[in-house]
Amino acid sequence: MSLLRSPRMALRLPMLQTQGLATSAHLSKSSGGPTGIVLLNMGGPSSIPEVRDFLYRLFADGDLIPLGRYQEQLARFIAWRRTPRIERHYEEIGGGSPIRKWSEYQAREMCKRLDSLSPETAPHKGYVAFRYAKPLTEETLKQMQQDGIKRAIAFTQYPQYSCSTTGSSLNELWKVTRKLDPDAEIKWSVIDRWSTHSGLVKTFAQLIKDKLKEYDASVRNKVILLFSAHSLPMSVVNRGDPYPAEVAATVYSVMSELKFNNQYRLVWQSQVGPSAWLGAQTSDTVKSLVKQGHTNIILVPIAFTSDHIETLHELDLEIIKEAKVDGVKRAESLNGHPMFIDALADVVLHHLKEGAVASNQYALQCAMCTKEVCSNSRQFFLSQ
Amino acid sequence: MSLLRSPRMALRLPMLQTQGLATSAHLSKSSGGPTGIVLLNMGGPSSIPEVRDFLYRLFADGDLIPLGRYQEQLARFIAWRRTPRIERHYEEIGGGSPIRKWSEYQAREMCKRLDSLSPETAPHKGYVAFRYAKPLTEETLKQMQQDGIKRAIAFTQYPQYSCSTTGSSLNELWKVTRKLDPDAEIKWSVIDRWSTHSGLVKTFAQLIKDKLKEYDASVRNKVILLFSAHSLPMSVVNRGDPYPAEVAATVYSVMSELKFNNQYRLVWQSQVGPSAWLGAQTSDTVKSLVKQGHTNIILVPIAFTSDHIETLHELDLEIIKEAKVDGVKRAESLNGHPMFIDALADVVLHHLKEGAVASNQYALQCAMCTKEVCSNSRQFFLSQ
Repeated sequence: MSLLRSPRMALRLPMLQTQGLATSAHLSKSSGGPTGIVLLNMGGPSSIPEVRDFLYRLFADGDLIPLGRYQEQLARFIAWRRTPRIERHYEEIGGGSPIRKWSEYQAREMCKRLDSLSPETAPHKGYVAFRYAKPLTEETLKQMQQDGIKRAIAFTQYPQYSCSTTGSSLNELWKVTRKLDPDAEIKWSVIDRWSTHSGLVKTFAQLIKDKLKEYDASVRNKVILLFSAHSLPMSVVNRGDPYPAEVAATVYSVMSELKFNNQYRLVWQSQVGPSAWLGAQTSDTVKSLVKQGHTNIILVPIAFTSDHIETLHELDLEIIKEAKVDGVKRAESLNGHPMFIDALADVVLHHLKEGAVASNQYALQCAMCTKEVCSNSRQFFLSQ
Repeated sequence: MSLLRSPRMALRLPMLQTQGLATSAHLSKSSGGPTGIVLLNMGGPSSIPEVRDFLYRLFADGDLIPLGRYQEQLARFIAWRRTPRIERHYEEIGGGSPIRKWSEYQAREMCKRLDSLSPETAPHKGYVAFRYAKPLTEETLKQMQQDGIKRAIAFTQYPQYSCSTTGSSLNELWKVTRKLDPDAEIKWSVIDRWSTHSGLVKTFAQLIKDKLKEYDASVRNKVILLFSAHSLPMSVVNRGDPYPAEVAATVYSVMSELKFNNQYRLVWQSQVGPSAWLGAQTSDTVKSLVKQGHTNIILVPIAFTSDHIETLHELDLEIIKEAKVDGVKRAESLNGHPMFIDALADVVLHHLKEGAVASNQYALQCAMCTKEVCSNSRQFFLSQ
């Protein structure tokens, strides 16, 4: 359990095998496998020297942060300017992001469970493809080809769909596939959203209950739950991005599971730059609530499945530390919680049994989206 | 049924008795009554000459549309400028808003059901208190005093809580109570939100299914559902208003009830003025989807319980008419649907049985709210 609960410690452990996290061989009697399952996520620098490239890729992604026609030049400039500060942040959380470690652990453990649950599609081979850090999509796809994968599932690790996150990862996967696998030898299907999957919801609820136990019983039901999700630029929201409503659906489902015993709000974190982003902001909200005398608050990272800089630094070392009140805490991230691993396996199992190429919602592009890549990548995945 | 389905026809019927919609006498054996139940809503002008006063009151309400220190002067100017156009809109929907008729019908029918369901709190007397049109809160409170009401429930007809709507109505009720009932002879409790009540959700789902039947079976599961709610200024959203997340919770619950059979989005209508409001806008979304070839769309007014100008004019005569495509339709409003009346009664019944003064969430003021009235009205209702 210490590995699960202490990601900063765990970072110092030797890095797990990156790619093709092969599953146990005794299931080789199955017929439909191997099945590649690729966990898509933004990723983060595993070490300090990777920070600048990570930041450049992040700001160069117009799907995530639309900066207009000079996106690439601006990205280089912003990455150069922000690198020293962000390097310090990564140093302060132990020298890098634990997201790769967690993702690989999740992929491997999920596949073990799937080999038992679905022998007909075994062996299941877990992969990780990050958008802005290693292992990048291209590297992962090459590995899958080497491993002889013909059937693969792109499994977003953003439970709530946004064009900025899952959309960007799928666009990237489509681009790389077009280049590396022009004859489409790998047959893909997509798990594009799972915001209210019961296992996900129950794990969030469990982690909140665990944190509530740290408060004296007399104040426990007075603790305010602040569900915090990464914000979006209003230009993305106003284009018709489904993310805000899907995050709210997760929050509602978790509160239902908790029988609405505590007061709660959905707030938004991590906005950058001068343009308008969706609020209310997590940092402002915590400051204001504490000022009003609400000193017992649990922050719940509701749109991330693993710890990374936004939880370990922004929430823990900025917002919570600066609140200077013992009662302001954070629920643990899902990371390697066994209930969460079960949930991951269940999402895939359901997807395999359903046999759909993607969700019904995926085919509907944002109403005000004019990006050709969003339309092309959809066509590609939906034609599988 | 024609009364229920044809609000414009119904408008020409003689106006129902306004206040104190008394319930049947045979339940007088009960002990805890009478119970006054006040439906709170924004209201609308029942006739053309009421339009200007309605608009003035609406724009003078800083809880709804924050215009700064010159709110009252600006409200007079805006009302004067907009009156001719809005008068035309009301003429085009039959000479006035049906919201008073529907509200009185809902109050009366709900009370009939409550008299059977909860004889111990009978007789139930239904009232309507509008924020911007007759019957105004002051008029209703006077009537309740004349009727000898000592126990009352403020029942918001906005299922999802916003400071702009329910908050504004409760602030007004507190102000009027302080003036007319300084010794607090009427004991209040509050139904401040009911966004995912199962009866509400099932009625929405039923009305969507009814509308889907108008499409050929071959295209029925390709129809896009656009849930449309009144938008909010971003200044209100960023202050921490819970409305966007609560509307999304309703949408999610309705889609669950419909087994996610159709594609859907949550969109926002009715923004006014030059400041930033929450999007994506309903009108832009319909235009863009139609342009992309999505010609089968059902608009679902998800945050209104009765027809008024925003459904009958903005959706029906502007957005749908201008789309010039037969497949763009609107789900009926809840209005007098028997399932909806049952839901209203069930919400009150649950509230009576629970015995709470308000919901757990009501006590939590928006984090960035600095309005004294919001704090005072909360204190008043929560001390009951």
